[in-house]
Amino acid sequence: MSTLPSRQVVLARHIPGLPEPEHFRVERVEVGEPRDGELRVRTLFASVDPGTLARLGGVDSYAPALELGEVIGSATVGEVLASRDTRYAVGDVVVGGWGWREHAVVSARGLRKVDPGPESASAELGVLGIPGLTAYFGILELGRPQAGETVLVSSAAGAVGSISGQIAKRQGARVVGIAGGPEKCRWVVEALGFDACLDYRAEKDLAAAIRRECPQGVGVYLDNVGGSTLDAALTCMALKGRVVVSGLVADYGVPPEARAGLKNTPFLIIQRLRMEGFVVFDYAARFGEARAALRAWLQDGSLRHREHIVEGLESAPAVFAGLFRGENFGRAVVKVG
Amino acid sequence: MSTLPSRQVVLARHIPGLPEPEHFRVERVEVGEPRDGELRVRTLFASVDPGTLARLGGVDSYAPALELGEVIGSATVGEVLASRDTRYAVGDVVVGGWGWREHAVVSARGLRKVDPGPESASAELGVLGIPGLTAYFGILELGRPQAGETVLVSSAAGAVGSISGQIAKRQGARVVGIAGGPEKCRWVVEALGFDACLDYRAEKDLAAAIRRECPQGVGVYLDNVGGSTLDAALTCMALKGRVVVSGLVADYGVPPEARAGLKNTPFLIIQRLRMEGFVVFDYAARFGEARAALRAWLQDGSLRHREHIVEGLESAPAVFAGLFRGENFGRAVVKVG
Repeated sequence: MSTLPSRQVVLARHIPGLPEPEHFRVERVEVGEPRDGELRVRTLFASVDPGTLARLGGVDSYAPALELGEVIGSATVGEVLASRDTRYAVGDVVVGGWGWREHAVVSARGLRKVDPGPESASAELGVLGIPGLTAYFGILELGRPQAGETVLVSSAAGAVGSISGQIAKRQGARVVGIAGGPEKCRWVVEALGFDACLDYRAEKDLAAAIRRECPQGVGVYLDNVGGSTLDAALTCMALKGRVVVSGLVADYGVPPEARAGLKNTPFLIIQRLRMEGFVVFDYAARFGEARAALRAWLQDGSLRHREHIVEGLESAPAVFAGLFRGENFGRAVVKVG
Repeated sequence: MSTLPSRQVVLARHIPGLPEPEHFRVERVEVGEPRDGELRVRTLFASVDPGTLARLGGVDSYAPALELGEVIGSATVGEVLASRDTRYAVGDVVVGGWGWREHAVVSARGLRKVDPGPESASAELGVLGIPGLTAYFGILELGRPQAGETVLVSSAAGAVGSISGQIAKRQGARVVGIAGGPEKCRWVVEALGFDACLDYRAEKDLAAAIRRECPQGVGVYLDNVGGSTLDAALTCMALKGRVVVSGLVADYGVPPEARAGLKNTPFLIIQRLRMEGFVVFDYAARFGEARAALRAWLQDGSLRHREHIVEGLESAPAVFAGLFRGENFGRAVVKVG
């Protein structure tokens, strides 16, 4: 049986707080041949997702915790090198979730064949992948902004935030972003068409800044951050506002007792707010519909996105660590091929 | 013009933290005669509500803050002594919100005539008043428990909690209460028919106790408390659970920076929770329907309630202060007449 030398990134130590490269280890392995119903793939791109941290602390969350030595999970897109499934042929490009590996043997079940087309294969991990789908359902199903309402989006230059704001804008909302640094804020307004973007590093009083840019109050807050940003936004909500909790990066890897904690919960009553957490996989049955819409908007040029592409699988741990310092600008993806 | 000597309780000092009797002052005043469209009333009962504290700190919340010297607001029931409105006659019993006064001249608008009947007039301030209505809409409109789901209720022996749990029980839910002390817990189970009641004073680990009594997870948590109780409950919710935030007594009068803060917000995502604050007045158009249902359940004996009645308007401040130490057992009402 012919094997193929490959590398993969595994969890070397559980991560109690924020990740550092030394929590990971690059391993050399030999990848075998596919059996019936399997494919051998060469990874083209692997995503680098902040949400993965929730699985690396040794404690189960919305997904089971990784054991030491397990490959770090991520969305992936790759080229089929060998196929033992009639639906896939050598040379096909498939999207899956085989994690940070150069090559892999994977079950054909749960894969999706794509025609990369003009957006390139990496878009399948970002604007057409989980972040784009999260933005789509977060805004259109949970937030449901009405025309004229104000939508506030944190991590506005990030993978979910950048798409969320543009979808809210299509609904006729006034859209205000929060991002770190003038470069990201400029891009959010000038390239993405947000009405304003607050630089949380420059604003001494974030709540006051939100109120300044959202004089009618925030109708929908799409939260990708949690922590003190969420606490500030709670004080700025309009009556009957909706807080869509899509990600809580500020809380990932921070043990509960060390978190600042949400102190402005009385605003839930004062303003009759609804705060709702969601996991996009609950909408899996509608992913096709959502992808078709996102793809159409991409193709007509009305939806823009940006990728932070770094070369080489061995870079993934450092890129991952940088996510929590706001170092990425756009969807973080590792180019593996 | 004939006046009537009366007493009233006013705000003597803004309350930065928890209330003490010295924040209040009893004043003697002369009450004049009603003009067109007004009534002169003698108070029979005045409610003592924890939510009032939100208005006594000098900062507006869901209702404007009281100025120093203003009469403390409350629901009231009284007898008409003189009427300049054709809809009301001397001797009628009316429900209104003229606050902690022995006598008052009030506009006939917004009053409601009641036939006290067998439940006695004080029930109009409790099970048939705002607490009962809060329980009704909190469970049936926001929580919407399904048969077989588990409903958790804090302040289970309190005005809202005691009614909420009984309504949830009617819907076929398993109902678990949280209350302070064995006497209250016993009443909640034996008299009200809750399936279990946790004594938060006796349980070292409230979250573990909730999980023990709610092995399927909590489908609906009706929260009257906030603070660490809410934080513990968040970790025990079932998938797609609903947290109905009806009152946050633990946060009233505590400045944001001194609050412990909600640390378990990641469970919003992990369990796809919906957390919603509400103010019952938003359902005012449906109060008639709700009162009719509550009254029918009272009359057929299927709904039980308990009142903590204290004599004399001058007792109101001490009763109010005691609410925040869990000293009341049942709906706190001052008998004024």
